[in-house]
Amino acid sequence: MSDSDRFEKGAEVMQKLLGRVPEEGAMQEDFRQITVKNLFGDIWTRPNLELEERSLITMAALTVLGREPELRIHLRGAQNLGMPREKVEEIMIHLAHYGGWPVAVGGMRAIAEVYGD
Amino acid sequence: MSDSDRFEKGAEVMQKLLGRVPEEGAMQEDFRQITVKNLFGDIWTRPNLELEERSLITMAALTVLGREPELRIHLRGAQNLGMPREKVEEIMIHLAHYGGWPVAVGGMRAIAEVYGD
Amino acid sequence: MSDSDRFEKGAEVMQKLLGRVPEEGAMQEDFRQITVKNLFGDIWTRPNLELEERSLITMAALTVLGREPELRIHLRGAQNLGMPREKVEEIMIHLAHYGGWPVAVGGMRAIAEVYGD
Amino acid sequence: MSDSDRFEKGAEVMQKLLGRVPEEGAMQEDFRQITVKNLFGDIWTRPNLELEERSLITMAALTVLGREPELRIHLRGAQNLGMPREKVEEIMIHLAHYGGWPVAVGGMRAIAEVYGD
Amino acid sequence: MSDSDRFEKGAEVMQKLLGRVPEEGAMQEDFRQITVKNLFGDIWTRPNLELEERSLITMAALTVLGREPELRIHLRGAQNLGMPREKVEEIMIHLAHYGGWPVAVGGMRAIAEVYGD
Amino acid sequence: MSDSDRFEKGAEVMQKLLGRVPEEGAMQEDFRQITVKNLFGDIWTRPNLELEERSLITMAALTVLGREPELRIHLRGAQNLGMPREKVEEIMIHLAHYGGWPVAVGGMRAIAEVYGD
Repeated sequence: MSDSDRFEKGAEVMQKLLGRVPEEGAMQEDFRQITVKNLFGDIWTRPNLELEERSLITMAALTVLGREPELRIHLRGAQNLGMPREKVEEIMIHLAHYGGWPVAVGGMRAIAEVYGD
Repeated sequence: MSDSDRFEKGAEVMQKLLGRVPEEGAMQEDFRQITVKNLFGDIWTRPNLELEERSLITMAALTVLGREPELRIHLRGAQNLGMPREKVEEIMIHLAHYGGWPVAVGGMRAIAEVYGD
Repeated sequence: MSDSDRFEKGAEVMQKLLGRVPEEGAMQEDFRQITVKNLFGDIWTRPNLELEERSLITMAALTVLGREPELRIHLRGAQNLGMPREKVEEIMIHLAHYGGWPVAVGGMRAIAEVYGD
Repeated sequence: MSDSDRFEKGAEVMQKLLGRVPEEGAMQEDFRQITVKNLFGDIWTRPNLELEERSLITMAALTVLGREPELRIHLRGAQNLGMPREKVEEIMIHLAHYGGWPVAVGGMRAIAEVYGD
Repeated sequence: MSDSDRFEKGAEVMQKLLGRVPEEGAMQEDFRQITVKNLFGDIWTRPNLELEERSLITMAALTVLGREPELRIHLRGAQNLGMPREKVEEIMIHLAHYGGWPVAVGGMRAIAEVYGD
Repeated sequence: MSDSDRFEKGAEVMQKLLGRVPEEGAMQEDFRQITVKNLFGDIWTRPNLELEERSLITMAALTVLGREPELRIHLRGAQNLGMPREKVEEIMIHLAHYGGWPVAVGGMRAIAEVYGD
C-alpha cells in the first residue's frame, strides 16, 4: 500500500473516532505522519477487533498506566461512538482492582471532565 | 447482601470464566475469601459491562502492566468464553502501540503457552 | 456482615485517617460505596497492621507509582495521625533508591504542599 | 565521612538486615561498592525511620512495582527482623488495592517461597 | 515507499543490529511483518540518531521498565555493535538512580547472561 | 573522598549540565546534599559514559516512565549541551515504540515547552 493510501485510511478512522485529523502544525510533523499512517492507518483499521473493542482496550491501557491526557482523548472517542457514561464508569470500577485504586480515581476525574459533571 | 451470598456469586462467575474456584489451601485463606467475595462477587458480577468486555479490559490491563502469570490465567478465561486466537493476538498488536513493543511480545508469548504453538 | 455495617466501619476509619467521609455527590455513587465498604470497611480495618503502618505502606506505594494527587490525600492522613514532617521526608529519601529519583522529587513536592513550605 | 567508614556502616546494616554482605565477585564490583556505601551506608543508617519501618516501605515499593527477586531478598530481611508471616501477608492484601490484584498475587507467591508453604 | 521496500529496509537493520531477521514461523505472522516494516523499517532507519544512540536509549527504556527478555536481545545488539561491557554496566549504575535499584540489579543480571560471567 | 570533595564534584557537573546548583532552601536540605553528592558527585562523574550519553539515557528513562517535570529539567540540560531539537524529537519518535505512544506525546509536549513552539 502506498504512503498516501495509508495516510488516507488513518485519517478516516481518526475522523470517525476522534472527530478530527491533526492538521499540519498541530504536532511535530514526522510524528504526525507516523501517528496517522502507522498507528491509525496500519493498526486501528485491522480486522479481528471492532472499533468499539479497540476503544475499550485502549482506555483500559491508558487508565492503568495513568496516562490521563490521552485517556481524555479516547474518552471523547468513546463518547463519539455512543458509549454511555455508565459503561466508561464501570471500566474504572473494574480496573481499580487490576491497576490500583488511584488509577480508577484518575479515570473517574477524566470522565467528569469529558462527559461533564 | 450476606457474606455467603457474596462468596456464592463470586464462585459462580469464577467457575464460568476460569473453570474453577480456588479451594481452601490454594492460596492464603483471607486473600482467597476477599478474591472470591470482593473481586469476583462484588465487581465481576456488576452490570454495564458484559463478561467478555470485562475479559477484554482485564487482559489489556495485565498486558500493558507486564503481569504475565495473571495474563495467562485470563487468556484461559478468554478461551473458555470462546474468544478466538486471532482476537487475542490482535489485542497484542494493538497494545504494542500503547504500552510498548515488549509488552506485546510478552503477550504473544503468553498466547502461545495458553492457545498452543 | 451486612452492607450497612461494612459502610459504617469504613466511614469510621476514613473519618479518623482522612478527617472526612466522602458525601453523596462527591464521587460517582457506586465507586463511593465500594471505596467506603470494600476498601476502607473491609481492608483498612483488618488486624495485623497498625493504622500508621497502613499509612506508611500506602504512601510508599503511591510514591513509587507516581500517584501524586492520592499521595497528597494520604500525606494529610499521615499528618492527622501525628506523623512528623521529618518522617515523611525520610520516606522520600529512602524511596529515591527503590523507585528512582524523580518519584522522590515528586514526593517532596507533595509534602511541601501538604505540610507547608 | 571517609569511604571506608561508609562501607563499614553499610556492611553492618546489611549484615543485620540481610544476614550477609555481598563478597567481592558476587556482583559487578563498582555496583557492589555503591550498593554498600551509598545505598546501605548513607541511606539505610539515617535517622527518622526505624529499621523495621524501612523494611516495610521497601517491601511496599518492591511489591507494587512487581520486582519479585528483590522482594524475596527483603522478605528474608523482614523474617530476620522477626516480622511474623501474618504481617507480611497483610501487606499484600492491603496493596492489592493500591497496585492492583496481580502484584498482591506475586507478593503472596514470594512469601510462600521465603516463609515456606 | 512500497511494503516490500519497507520490509527490506527493516530486515537490513535487524541483520546489522541483532544478527538475524525473524523467519516465518518465529512469531505471529502479522506481528512479524509489523515488527520488521513499521518498527525496524520505518523507525530504526530514520536520521537524527546514530544506530548506537538508538541502542543506548532502547536499553535505557527496557531497563527502567523491567523488560528483561527484550533487554537481553538488545544487549546482544549492543555487543554486535562493539559496545564494551564497561559501558553497558555503567548504564545500569546510572539508571539505578532513575528507575530504582532493582532495575539495575536486573540489568546487571541480564549483562552477565549476555556478556558471560 | 571527603564529603566536601564529593559535593564540589557534583556541583561542577550540575553547573555544566543544568546551568545551576540548587541553593540552600531550594529543596529539603538532606535531599539536596544527597542529590549533589551521591547522584551528581558520585555517579554523573564516573567514566565509561560521556556526559551527552548520560543525558540521552536519562531522558529515555524519564520519558518511558512518564516523569514530565524531571524530563523538562533534563531537556534543558540537553539544550545546554548543544543537542539539536531534531535529536530530542527523534528520541520521542523512537520511544513511542518501547514505552507506548502516550509517553512520546508527553515527551513532545515537554520539548515544545523547553525548546519553544
